[in-house]
Amino acid sequence: MLEKFDVLIVGGGPAGIITAITARKYYKDKKIAVLRSVEKGAIPCGIPYMISSLKNPDDNTMPLASLAANNVTALVEKVITIDRKSKTVKTEKGAEYGYDKLVLATGSNPIIPPVKGADLKGVYPAYKDMEYLKKAVLEIKAAGSVVVLGGGFIGVEFADELSRVAGVKTTLVEMLPQILTNSFDPEFSKMASDKLSAAGVTVIMGIKVEEISGNGKAEKVKLSDGRVIDAGAVILGIGAVPEVAAAKEAGLDVVERRGICVDEYMRTKDLDIFAVGDCACKKDFYTRRDTPVMLASTATAEARIAGANLFSLKVIRENKGTIAIYSTYINGLVLGSAGLTETTAKKEGFEIITSTAAGKDRHPGTLPGGSDVTVKLVFSKQAGIILGGQVSGGQSAGELINLIGVAIQKRMSVSELETLQMATQPYLTSAPTVYPLVVAAQNASNKF
Amino acid sequence: MLEKFDVLIVGGGPAGIITAITARKYYKDKKIAVLRSVEKGAIPCGIPYMISSLKNPDDNTMPLASLAANNVTALVEKVITIDRKSKTVKTEKGAEYGYDKLVLATGSNPIIPPVKGADLKGVYPAYKDMEYLKKAVLEIKAAGSVVVLGGGFIGVEFADELSRVAGVKTTLVEMLPQILTNSFDPEFSKMASDKLSAAGVTVIMGIKVEEISGNGKAEKVKLSDGRVIDAGAVILGIGAVPEVAAAKEAGLDVVERRGICVDEYMRTKDLDIFAVGDCACKKDFYTRRDTPVMLASTATAEARIAGANLFSLKVIRENKGTIAIYSTYINGLVLGSAGLTETTAKKEGFEIITSTAAGKDRHPGTLPGGSDVTVKLVFSKQAGIILGGQVSGGQSAGELINLIGVAIQKRMSVSELETLQMATQPYLTSAPTVYPLVVAAQNASNKF
Repeated sequence: MLEKFDVLIVGGGPAGIITAITARKYYKDKKIAVLRSVEKGAIPCGIPYMISSLKNPDDNTMPLASLAANNVTALVEKVITIDRKSKTVKTEKGAEYGYDKLVLATGSNPIIPPVKGADLKGVYPAYKDMEYLKKAVLEIKAAGSVVVLGGGFIGVEFADELSRVAGVKTTLVEMLPQILTNSFDPEFSKMASDKLSAAGVTVIMGIKVEEISGNGKAEKVKLSDGRVIDAGAVILGIGAVPEVAAAKEAGLDVVERRGICVDEYMRTKDLDIFAVGDCACKKDFYTRRDTPVMLASTATAEARIAGANLFSLKVIRENKGTIAIYSTYINGLVLGSAGLTETTAKKEGFEIITSTAAGKDRHPGTLPGGSDVTVKLVFSKQAGIILGGQVSGGQSAGELINLIGVAIQKRMSVSELETLQMATQPYLTSAPTVYPLVVAAQNASNKF
Repeated sequence: MLEKFDVLIVGGGPAGIITAITARKYYKDKKIAVLRSVEKGAIPCGIPYMISSLKNPDDNTMPLASLAANNVTALVEKVITIDRKSKTVKTEKGAEYGYDKLVLATGSNPIIPPVKGADLKGVYPAYKDMEYLKKAVLEIKAAGSVVVLGGGFIGVEFADELSRVAGVKTTLVEMLPQILTNSFDPEFSKMASDKLSAAGVTVIMGIKVEEISGNGKAEKVKLSDGRVIDAGAVILGIGAVPEVAAAKEAGLDVVERRGICVDEYMRTKDLDIFAVGDCACKKDFYTRRDTPVMLASTATAEARIAGANLFSLKVIRENKGTIAIYSTYINGLVLGSAGLTETTAKKEGFEIITSTAAGKDRHPGTLPGGSDVTVKLVFSKQAGIILGGQVSGGQSAGELINLIGVAIQKRMSVSELETLQMATQPYLTSAPTVYPLVVAAQNASNKF
C-alpha cells in the first residue's frame, strides 16, 4: 500500500472538493486525500460559457487551491477497484491506497445516443476534462454549423452561447414538443425557445435525430422528418448517467441509471463508504422515489452532509429528499424552476391548485433596467402547501427561485406565502402591492 | 349620511389599496370604498428616485387604476372624526360616510426635528403628496447645495440620487457614528458610506445639526462641531410617526409614536375597525415588544391579512410578529438586512453566534457583470435558529435578503441552512461550492 488516509475521496468535482473541505472543518486532525481522474477538471455549469462569455476558457478550470489550503492531499489517480475487506482502492496506475472512510464522488458520464454516427469525430459529449473541452471549443467555434442535440439546460445554454459566435449557424434539436420540459410548464418553455429563436438559433422540437453522417467526421444530421441539416459539429446535451462501475463491482447496491444507494447521511450499505453527487442515487422530496437529479448544487449539499458526518452524525439533515431547483440564463432572460411543475405534479398524481402573477422587478416600472417577472406556483389542493414554483425574469429571478426553494423545503402553506414579509425596493424588486410571489399565493388562496 | 359602505378604507397608500383589492378578492358582493386625503399620492419607496432615476417624476404617482378595476369606489376625502356608535366617519369637507367595517390606513407623517429653522422655506419633509413632491424636486435640484438630514434608507437614497445631479453639492448628516445603523452592523454601514463618498457625497457622521438658518429660506446648516455648511435646500429623512389623531379621538388604543393597537388580524379593540400599515402598531417578531417598522412591504402584508379577514377569519396568520426586512441600492451597491443584526441582537439580550462568508454572484468569477457578495448571519447560540442576516452585493442581493427573510420567518436551524438545497447558475449566483449563505451557515455551525 502506498499510503493510508483517514478519509479518501474519489473524484475531484464539486462533490469531492466540498466533501474534503467540509471534512477538514469538522475533523481537524484527520488525514484527507482527494483522488481525481484528470489533471484539470472543468466547473460543470460553466462548460457552455467557454464558448463565448468567458474570454479565456481556462477560467473554467475547477479550482483546487482550496484543497491545499485545507491540508488535503490531491492526487491524479483514477480508481479502478475497491476492496472493502482490506479497505483499499486500486488505481489505473497500479497504486494502492488505504482508507478508514471512503467517499465516492465519481460523478457521471454523458449519454451517447444510440444513433448511427454518434461516435464520429466532430461529435462532442460534454466531458469534464479541461484539455478535451478546450480543444472541443476551438473546433466547435470553427465548425460553421453546429447542431446541439437535446433541449435541456446544457443544450439551451450551449445554443445561446453559440448564437453570439460570428459565422456559426446553430440548430437545437429536441425530440419532445418543447424544450426544458422536465423543469418547466409549456408557457415557460415557450419563453425559452422564443428567446433562442430571436437570437438566431433554429429550434427544432418534436423531431428525433436519425443519423449523424459525414466522411470520417460529422457533416450532416438527418432528422426523423427527413430533413438533413449541416453539422460541422454536434454537441450532445441529452443527459448523463452515474459513474458506478467500481461501486458495483465492490458489491455496493446500485440502481441502474440512478446511482449508488445511500441513506439520509449519504452512507452506502457499507457504513465506511459514502457516495455523494451525481454518482449517488437521490430520493425525491415529494414521493421518496428514485429521481435523476444531477446538479452541482445538489452535489455540494450532499457533500456537506457527508463531510460533516463521516465519523459521527453531527449535522442532522432536516430537509429530507432531493428537490430539483434549476435556473438558467438565455440572452438576458432568466428562467428558474423549483420542485414540481404543473405537468410533473399531475404526472406524479398530485391534486393541485396553480396560480400565476406577473410584475416588474422595478417600481415604478419606468425605472431603468427593469425586467418583467412572472411567478407560477403549484400547491397541494388539500394540504395547502407549496409543491413547486417557476419564475421568469431578470437577474433577480436567480435568487427568487431559491427563495421559492426554501419555501418548498419548509413546506410553507398558501396562507404563509400570502402573508409573507419581504423587502421591496424600487431598483431591486416589484412593488409590495404587486410582488408576484405573494400575489400568486393570494390568487391560489382564492381558489381553495 | 352621504353613503354607507360595507368596507370603508381610510387612506390611499399601499396599505389602503391592497386592503381594498384583497377585500374584493375575498368578498365579491361587498360595497367597498377608499377615501384618500390627496388627489395624487406618491409611491413611498420611489420618492428619492424622482430626483434623477425617473425621467418623469409623474411616473412615481401611486396608481389607482386597480381600484376601479376591482369595483372599489375611490374618493378624495380627508377623514377627521370617527363615530363608533353610529358607525360613521366625518370628512374635512363635511361629508359623512357609514361603514360596516372600517379600515384605518392613515399612514405616517415625517418627523420635523426640534431644531431652529426646521420650518423655513427650502426645508423638505418627505410628504407623500405628488404636487408637493414635484415642486420640491424642482427646487431641490436647482438649489446648488443640498443637505440631507438623516442617514436612514430614505436619506441615503436621496443622497445617492443627488450625487448624479450636475451642479448640486450634496452633504449627508447623521448624528450617529455610522449611517443605516438600525439595520446594519458597522462593516456593512461602512460599505454604504464609502459608496456615497465615492459618488461625491460629503458624509458627516457623529455630528448633530444645531440650526438651519437663512433669510426667509434655508441657506446654511450649522453643525454641533461649529461647522456651517451651505444648504440651498434641506431634505428631512429622520423618520416618521404614525398618523393616529382620528383613532385616538375615537377612543381606540394607541401607543405613542408606535401606532394604533391591533391584534394578530389587524383588528383594533373595536372588532369592526381595523388598522394597517404605518399607522398600526407592530409587535416585534422576536420579543413581541412594540417596534417601529414602517415599510410598504410590511404595510401590504398587513393589508392582505386585514382584507381577507374583514368579515371572518379566513387567512390564518402563521408568521407572528413583524420582522424588518430592508434593501437599498446605492450606485450599484445593494445592501439588504433581515431581522436582527449582531448589534441589535446583543442590544435585545440575545446570546448569539455570527458568521460571514463572501463570494461572487458569477461563477467562474471572470464571467462578465459579476458583483462581490457578502453574507453575514446571526444565530441563537442555544436554539441554533437564525435570527438575522445581512447581505451586500449586486442585483441578486435584493431577493437573496428575502430568502434569508423566509428562513427567519420559518425559524430555520443552522443545520437546515448548512444543508440547504438551492439552484446555482454561472450568470446568476455564486458557485455551489462557495454559495455564501450556505458557507456562512457552515462556518457558524462549526462554532456551536
